[in-house]
Amino acid sequence: MTNPLDTTSDHRPGGGYTARVRVQVRAELAERGYEGLTTEGVATRAEVHRAMVYRCWRDAGGLLIDVIDAAGEIDWQPPNTGLLRGNLTALNQEIQESPVVRPSLAVALMAASFHSERTARAQTRLWADWYARCEILVERAVGCGGLDARHTDARSLLIAATAPLHHQLVLLRADPDPRLPKRAAETAVLAAAAGAFTVHREESV
Amino acid sequence: MTNPLDTTSDHRPGGGYTARVRVQVRAELAERGYEGLTTEGVATRAEVHRAMVYRCWRDAGGLLIDVIDAAGEIDWQPPNTGLLRGNLTALNQEIQESPVVRPSLAVALMAASFHSERTARAQTRLWADWYARCEILVERAVGCGGLDARHTDARSLLIAATAPLHHQLVLLRADPDPRLPKRAAETAVLAAAAGAFTVHREESV
Repeated sequence: MTNPLDTTSDHRPGGGYTARVRVQVRAELAERGYEGLTTEGVATRAEVHRAMVYRCWRDAGGLLIDVIDAAGEIDWQPPNTGLLRGNLTALNQEIQESPVVRPSLAVALMAASFHSERTARAQTRLWADWYARCEILVERAVGCGGLDARHTDARSLLIAATAPLHHQLVLLRADPDPRLPKRAAETAVLAAAAGAFTVHREESV
Repeated sequence: MTNPLDTTSDHRPGGGYTARVRVQVRAELAERGYEGLTTEGVATRAEVHRAMVYRCWRDAGGLLIDVIDAAGEIDWQPPNTGLLRGNLTALNQEIQESPVVRPSLAVALMAASFHSERTARAQTRLWADWYARCEILVERAVGCGGLDARHTDARSLLIAATAPLHHQLVLLRADPDPRLPKRAAETAVLAAAAGAFTVHREESV
């Protein structure tokens, strides 16, 4: 999701150190969560000098942002199983399963986002990029289910489809409901067919 | 939202100290946010012994939970302006304005929820109680807009209506969109009219 060249910029050490540090950041997150992530702990595990970790990544927030940026370089694409309803359901299933896959970088970033403006901005960026990538799901749905892509607010539709999942996992801290991915997707598609995300001329200007 | 008698239980000091401590917890949250909230800081501001604060509230999480429980004793009721669409819009406006009203206890609790199981549970409890209180909005809408209260999953409807607001404010950290409260409410009502929250017999068992 970010420029892959960023990690080889002159602010960062060579590939060997960087890769080793990232592996250990992930290991620390898995074992201790974001609250336990420190430059000292990572330096010790990665067998690099603490001063270098501090110079290159500054603090726990910097280490986390770097790992997330690196993960964003993976060419993730939203699911493409067929119709909009199925694609949104599959997307929601990915959201629901992500905190189960340890470490959940998204959850760590949310915890970090309360510590600094920098991590708060990284969180905004991560999700803006993620929704931008997902808009193709709506674009593919042109002509299906009453959707008119030219006049459909793709972002609002995606947020309506996915927000209940984030809400359940982050705000309510509820156990995953195996029926929710499909239900939330269906709700968004029904609302879309009823014109909920139609952009009117005066709003699209 | 909790038993008002709780604050006069024998685990807590008399009303005078408790009220003073709560005022100072709110002041500390407003000035420093949750990350800056400490038993020492509150004790100093409230002019009480640090040991007493520690004994009664234990830590920053305990102080925060107590203030939230105290706020829950206020007899808050969801807006009742008329039809479901208007009531959900008004509810969303309250959500959108709440982080502007400093200190936002909900945001502080979310930050705290990453620090301990106890604060995570308090967050779950807070929102479970809040949605339970709001279900009356759906119950009032019986017969309106195609809604059949006996077969409508009120909680799912409320979550669909409000989740985009929480999502925007907490996950995306975006500036409030003045059109979102009405739009999210309308989306939920359109989806409801299309049967998105209808409970089928096999699901309601």
